[in-house]
Amino acid sequence: MTFLEKVKSAQAKSGTILCVGLDTDYQKLPEVLDDERNPVLAFNKAIIDATSDLVCCYKLQIAYYEAYGERFYESVQSTLGYIPKHILTIGDVKRGDIGATSEKYAHAYQDMFAFDAITINPLMGFDAAEPFLRREDRGVFFLGLTSNPGARDFEYLELKNGKKLYEEITDKVREWNEPRKNAGLVVGATKPQELRALRERAPELPFLIPGVGTQGGTMEEVKEANGNGIAIVNVSRGIIAASNGKDFAEAARAAAMKFRT
Amino acid sequence: MTFLEKVKSAQAKSGTILCVGLDTDYQKLPEVLDDERNPVLAFNKAIIDATSDLVCCYKLQIAYYEAYGERFYESVQSTLGYIPKHILTIGDVKRGDIGATSEKYAHAYQDMFAFDAITINPLMGFDAAEPFLRREDRGVFFLGLTSNPGARDFEYLELKNGKKLYEEITDKVREWNEPRKNAGLVVGATKPQELRALRERAPELPFLIPGVGTQGGTMEEVKEANGNGIAIVNVSRGIIAASNGKDFAEAARAAAMKFRT
Repeated sequence: MTFLEKVKSAQAKSGTILCVGLDTDYQKLPEVLDDERNPVLAFNKAIIDATSDLVCCYKLQIAYYEAYGERFYESVQSTLGYIPKHILTIGDVKRGDIGATSEKYAHAYQDMFAFDAITINPLMGFDAAEPFLRREDRGVFFLGLTSNPGARDFEYLELKNGKKLYEEITDKVREWNEPRKNAGLVVGATKPQELRALRERAPELPFLIPGVGTQGGTMEEVKEANGNGIAIVNVSRGIIAASNGKDFAEAARAAAMKFRT
Repeated sequence: MTFLEKVKSAQAKSGTILCVGLDTDYQKLPEVLDDERNPVLAFNKAIIDATSDLVCCYKLQIAYYEAYGERFYESVQSTLGYIPKHILTIGDVKRGDIGATSEKYAHAYQDMFAFDAITINPLMGFDAAEPFLRREDRGVFFLGLTSNPGARDFEYLELKNGKKLYEEITDKVREWNEPRKNAGLVVGATKPQELRALRERAPELPFLIPGVGTQGGTMEEVKEANGNGIAIVNVSRGIIAASNGKDFAEAARAAAMKFRT
């Protein structure tokens, strides 16, 4: 199955474009998990149990797992093993390095952990991106326009050719997508106008859209701006941090239901 | 000690600006290490034993360790523990994400592994960079101009304001450096002309200069172009892959001696 077929299949089966971000912070877990052998893993399993019929995708923000130290590998591997096979998995890693190094990251996240898709930082250009694009069945979402204030520092810069940097990046990602149709773009939900314009610019690219919920974007705005394009909309804290009590999993389910509709 | 004092002290003690890149590829280790419990760690220890009187710094390219799976954490932690305290350590991680996520990476690499410095991708702007800059005694090298061909795709783009993107990044990094004097720039050794110009543009910033050896840059060109600025020059494969036989450590020492002079 190609990456796009995987996305379409996961969205058809679940009836939604909602992705839950498992940005699981070991320092902010519900106390009820204190006695678990691996509290992060226990938390993720409870969230997956409570939401897997409501979502098309889980996205793991890898920073939270790297900060977990010795339990990094086990927590990621076992979480992925617990996610039902028809649901997409995204490794939010934002890597990118010289070719030989990118190959190593590709091995780690596409072969070893075997995420269906990963996020990549495009700054270093094509030879840094290419090792991630070799696997036809794996998606690669490049940072296009991010949801944070610092996007103003470089992404919005106007180029001599009349484009903004994020538009130039988008045009390059369209080229990089050609051989295997497995590239996509990260576009922040906090910028619906730009999202609409990018959707017109790159109608064929799947978008990964973070920033709904805590960061300020709304599902309605995003759906309206995205139109008919393929999109995965991620909500992290708005779902997984809906409650910090014993009811954290039910609260996450209720929040997911709300974002879904 | 501030970060700059640390660098100056390490370079004064060792009498060199040479850094050895521990880009240790578990798939390409000398056969003589096959029976070791952790061959990557055994390799690193042998290289450190053979070169620690010849260098001011070791840089770990984290991709190689992440690709090592379950042994990621132990291999990084134990390698760092084996490096003599007066020698600098750099975590080549090229991370960068929204603020809350960058904080987690900062925790992982600056607190947990406690690298003296790390490399960061500046694309997402200030709020993505800021969490790494909070620790006065830790250096943060932002990607300025990288040594790979793909640098042409975005880093060299001409902006409407007349600068190239990598020059704009350099100017921002100078601002980010102001509060704590702990920022620096990654500038590839394969571009001596641009290195010279960047040195004039940012005389106060320490440069981390990769790309000497296998990638094509030479130590002479780099020293000439860098002039009197503070610089750490990294050589990876040119030293650690000097031999793949039983003599790998002595060969690495001989190669380091050559690059040093």
